[in-house]
Amino acid sequence: MAEKKISEGTISRLFTYLRELERLAAFKIPTISSAELGERVNLSDAQVRKDLSCFGQFGVSGSGYDIRRLKSKLEKILGKDRAWNIAVVGVGNMGSALLAYPGFRLRGFKLVAAFDTDPEKISQRVKGVRVQPMETLEKTVRDKKVRIAIITVPAAAAQKVADQLVSAGIKCVLNFSPTPLMVSPEIKVKDVHLCRELETLSYFLLHQ
Amino acid sequence: MAEKKISEGTISRLFTYLRELERLAAFKIPTISSAELGERVNLSDAQVRKDLSCFGQFGVSGSGYDIRRLKSKLEKILGKDRAWNIAVVGVGNMGSALLAYPGFRLRGFKLVAAFDTDPEKISQRVKGVRVQPMETLEKTVRDKKVRIAIITVPAAAAQKVADQLVSAGIKCVLNFSPTPLMVSPEIKVKDVHLCRELETLSYFLLHQ
Repeated sequence: MAEKKISEGTISRLFTYLRELERLAAFKIPTISSAELGERVNLSDAQVRKDLSCFGQFGVSGSGYDIRRLKSKLEKILGKDRAWNIAVVGVGNMGSALLAYPGFRLRGFKLVAAFDTDPEKISQRVKGVRVQPMETLEKTVRDKKVRIAIITVPAAAAQKVADQLVSAGIKCVLNFSPTPLMVSPEIKVKDVHLCRELETLSYFLLHQ
Repeated sequence: MAEKKISEGTISRLFTYLRELERLAAFKIPTISSAELGERVNLSDAQVRKDLSCFGQFGVSGSGYDIRRLKSKLEKILGKDRAWNIAVVGVGNMGSALLAYPGFRLRGFKLVAAFDTDPEKISQRVKGVRVQPMETLEKTVRDKKVRIAIITVPAAAAQKVADQLVSAGIKCVLNFSPTPLMVSPEIKVKDVHLCRELETLSYFLLHQ
């Protein structure tokens, strides 16, 4: 791969472009200019060209980007030509909601395993996934080739769960617990701050 | 207020500082240096000083910030000295999980109303909140002084819901539906991209 040190912002925008290209391809539109693509996703012409130029030349002079070619290239770059197995740790309200979320599977994310410490939940099925005890985490991660884990346990339990996930070989964690996780630098953690989003909105209300 | 055009990044960091100051205040620690505060929240000394300098002088020469004073000032700036009433539109799995999420109330966000179009859900109670039909939205928003709405309906219904919320006077929306909302510029929308977070992680796995 030629790309190096692509920022998270760029990666996120590449997914946005891909989403839009999928829509356009569904309408059998053959090409699009950087200006049109930018307008559809609320980004500047220059931003679109800059982001896409990192990955080679997709433009066709005079007629813009070849939508099918660009879409297929982005799918490869972004790993959307494959599926990812995910485990959920913590089958409370949020964990159950995520297990039920149809959008994940549509985007190539298969929630294949769920874990909890509550004996009443263990062995139950939540949205088709059997809840397992934490003791089976390592074996399941290996057997089911789980690559990403979602933590939806209470704050007090989150660090211990993160440590267990890292021991089991997980390299990527999506953290819904409202606590920062301490992990070694090669582990990638994304925090979902549910309160923080509301806080930003409330700040806006207060100072608009 | 002296502050002008504070970026979302700064606002988010101010909430992070406040969280940490609350922890320190609970231990009755009187002061903290910008370097120490930065270290605790994984930000540079300079960043902390820059962010806090926007709001006046909190430093006490030689001993750092007065934790109680800085905490109380940040609470005022960030509106944490008051509560915000929130409505949830769409009482499916995600809507129910959010209604059950204890973190919101702890942070001053009261989920006071819930709406759905499903006749089977209407009039039921979900986590203590009665589900209402969309027809009562405007009256409820006014009566209960709802300032922020959370959209957790399927993608196909999201735009219509957003339009109804804006008609009812809502200025801030947290959007869990995987579709971009078209609203006029004075309406503030924050999108929660559940798939996007996983996509960024999977990109990392593919290219690490």
